[in-house]
Amino acid sequence: MNVAIMGFGTIGSGVAEVLSTNSALIEERVGQKLTLTKVLDLRDFEGDPVAPLIVHDYKEIAQDDSIDLVVETMGGVEPAFTFVKAMLENGKHVTTSNKALVADKGAELLAIAKEHGVQFQFEASVGGGIPIIRTILSCLTGDEIEEIVGIVNGTTNYMMTKMAEEGSGFDDVLKEAQANGYAEADPTADIEGHDATRKIAILTSLVAQAQVDYEDIPVEGISHITSADFAYAKKLGRAVKLLAVSRRAGDSFTVRVAPYLLSEEHPLFAVHGVMNAVYVVGNMLGPSMYYGSGAGSLPTASAVVGDLVHMARYHDEASTIRWSKEKVALETQERPYKNFLRTSLSEAEVRDIFPVAETVDAGIAGEIGVITDEMTEQEYQAAAGRLADGALLQRLRLA
Amino acid sequence: MNVAIMGFGTIGSGVAEVLSTNSALIEERVGQKLTLTKVLDLRDFEGDPVAPLIVHDYKEIAQDDSIDLVVETMGGVEPAFTFVKAMLENGKHVTTSNKALVADKGAELLAIAKEHGVQFQFEASVGGGIPIIRTILSCLTGDEIEEIVGIVNGTTNYMMTKMAEEGSGFDDVLKEAQANGYAEADPTADIEGHDATRKIAILTSLVAQAQVDYEDIPVEGISHITSADFAYAKKLGRAVKLLAVSRRAGDSFTVRVAPYLLSEEHPLFAVHGVMNAVYVVGNMLGPSMYYGSGAGSLPTASAVVGDLVHMARYHDEASTIRWSKEKVALETQERPYKNFLRTSLSEAEVRDIFPVAETVDAGIAGEIGVITDEMTEQEYQAAAGRLADGALLQRLRLA
Repeated sequence: MNVAIMGFGTIGSGVAEVLSTNSALIEERVGQKLTLTKVLDLRDFEGDPVAPLIVHDYKEIAQDDSIDLVVETMGGVEPAFTFVKAMLENGKHVTTSNKALVADKGAELLAIAKEHGVQFQFEASVGGGIPIIRTILSCLTGDEIEEIVGIVNGTTNYMMTKMAEEGSGFDDVLKEAQANGYAEADPTADIEGHDATRKIAILTSLVAQAQVDYEDIPVEGISHITSADFAYAKKLGRAVKLLAVSRRAGDSFTVRVAPYLLSEEHPLFAVHGVMNAVYVVGNMLGPSMYYGSGAGSLPTASAVVGDLVHMARYHDEASTIRWSKEKVALETQERPYKNFLRTSLSEAEVRDIFPVAETVDAGIAGEIGVITDEMTEQEYQAAAGRLADGALLQRLRLA
Repeated sequence: MNVAIMGFGTIGSGVAEVLSTNSALIEERVGQKLTLTKVLDLRDFEGDPVAPLIVHDYKEIAQDDSIDLVVETMGGVEPAFTFVKAMLENGKHVTTSNKALVADKGAELLAIAKEHGVQFQFEASVGGGIPIIRTILSCLTGDEIEEIVGIVNGTTNYMMTKMAEEGSGFDDVLKEAQANGYAEADPTADIEGHDATRKIAILTSLVAQAQVDYEDIPVEGISHITSADFAYAKKLGRAVKLLAVSRRAGDSFTVRVAPYLLSEEHPLFAVHGVMNAVYVVGNMLGPSMYYGSGAGSLPTASAVVGDLVHMARYHDEASTIRWSKEKVALETQERPYKNFLRTSLSEAEVRDIFPVAETVDAGIAGEIGVITDEMTEQEYQAAAGRLADGALLQRLRLA
């Protein structure tokens, strides 16, 4: 079977490398050889071994009947959507690593794939190499998924880990991450949590079998996290982590992306650096966790090639993934949780406003830390509204 | 489609509960209803809702053409093997949670299943509810699996966790585990590592696509572990864990089950209590880890039902799992590793025999702890042979 790759950047070239390095074992697993025959890119890659495969017009792939399987690793919604749609309409199975495309157009592309008797797969769009999507769709099939909590953004997890280990400030760590290639020149999508909202929107859509729009997900990034927060976290034996949380609430879901203070007992506590992990609770299985490289050329390509093997094995099958365009109205009433607050108020003043379970002294002058009793988000917001301007220095939810 | 369960103990009754509790969502995922119609057990379960389904002769299931899917949760090799073989020969898909059966007869039952155009699945036989087998066979299909390290025995992990947390001795913890139902009255199979060898034999067989006999796997249990070992482990910031280790070595594998001193950086470090986890390294993916409940009625049943859903979805397909009866000759030359030794010798005396990287004082009179440089197993054995009788109080490999 012949394969084409659209977009020969970090991940696309990784896919070519996986197909080449592991070609014998992939052939054995599929039952026939997977041969890369065309690569769509704007560049020519002159002198590179890939040069003879390069095409500049996606129609050369879409209209090539010898190509059965297409990889989309361009990123962004357009022109990826136009190209992928054309591939599906021409009877080609497609796998993508493109979270923006999947979050936006997943339901629509799945409908097009089904209509044309082919598959649209996207294992690499969440958690890089971690097989989280196949786990949810093909493994935990005896369970109702009740909760998903993910560390699904490597950039922010790397930064949080560095801040915890080295006591560095946010700006220094961001510069270091950029210098090391762990953060983009424009890091907004990562540090403001937008990347994570797309990923948890995809996972929640798969569980709900309907559309969760990432724009509807309440999101807080990590740019307001300071070294003082880590001083309290250390004192509390907790970690500061950007979590993407999705919980079943009756027929709906509560979803949130925010930095949390994570307990040492939580399986996500020890997920350090650029690693990703997704914690999944099933109503029969109970807690489980899936850990691995959330980014990087070969780990992400490994997931893409896993999709290729699946599509090649089941090439007579249309997609069976259920994800309708019908929109899920997210539930805003979350279950209650404790909050960590840093405040310039005295303990007595805080207690007038919040039910305080515990106070924490991290030795920082002019402020104290408190842990509230469990409160709903609404109860918290009502209490916080009664605080004097500037009295609240930080608020993190506990998980 | 109709389902039969053979063996209505902890797991079998759990399967019935999962099928009943999640019946609507399972029906939706399969595309038709899965109905439990017969249960094989020696007991009658009079007055229990299951009573009308009970049969005492497996032939009543084997010869019942209305039954498509059979669950085997009896345990042990016989009569489970005879019963499962009969089911496959009668064109029924079978899933089992029975590690003894799979380790012993997996290759043979897969051959019989293929011959009769049906599937033989065994997700629950390793790691309870953790979807580790489907991950290896259906997710990490773009990778060569290079290494598997598992905490796959809940009893011993519970005991190691208690010894670490409470400083208790082995015998006290074993009694407590038995009282809490976490250890059998005869705990030999767990504490001597035999249960773990069966599980790593199954995983290695799947990776090798050939037979790994668990009897060939070098095994050390945990009965020689004492509270002194945990004192040193704490000092070293390490955990004592019973690990099942399998590494690719060219065309062969090195496999071992033994207690190890695990580094705080290892993803398995924080796997506590009865939880299980399997660490898998792919040549493209790099490190990954899968964590969850390794035992218990509903978690294990969740994996069994995952198999049922798979077999029902693909009921026209024969098993595609490759596991030949050809025996894998295990490689005994492992890659070198560091060792932790407790000895009554002086540091100078130890240094005469071992290359010592580090000494550790846990404040225990009459002994010291040392960490050796990396040595092969053969180098270690040669050096240890030169020790005076009784001079070596403990030896644990580092991981």
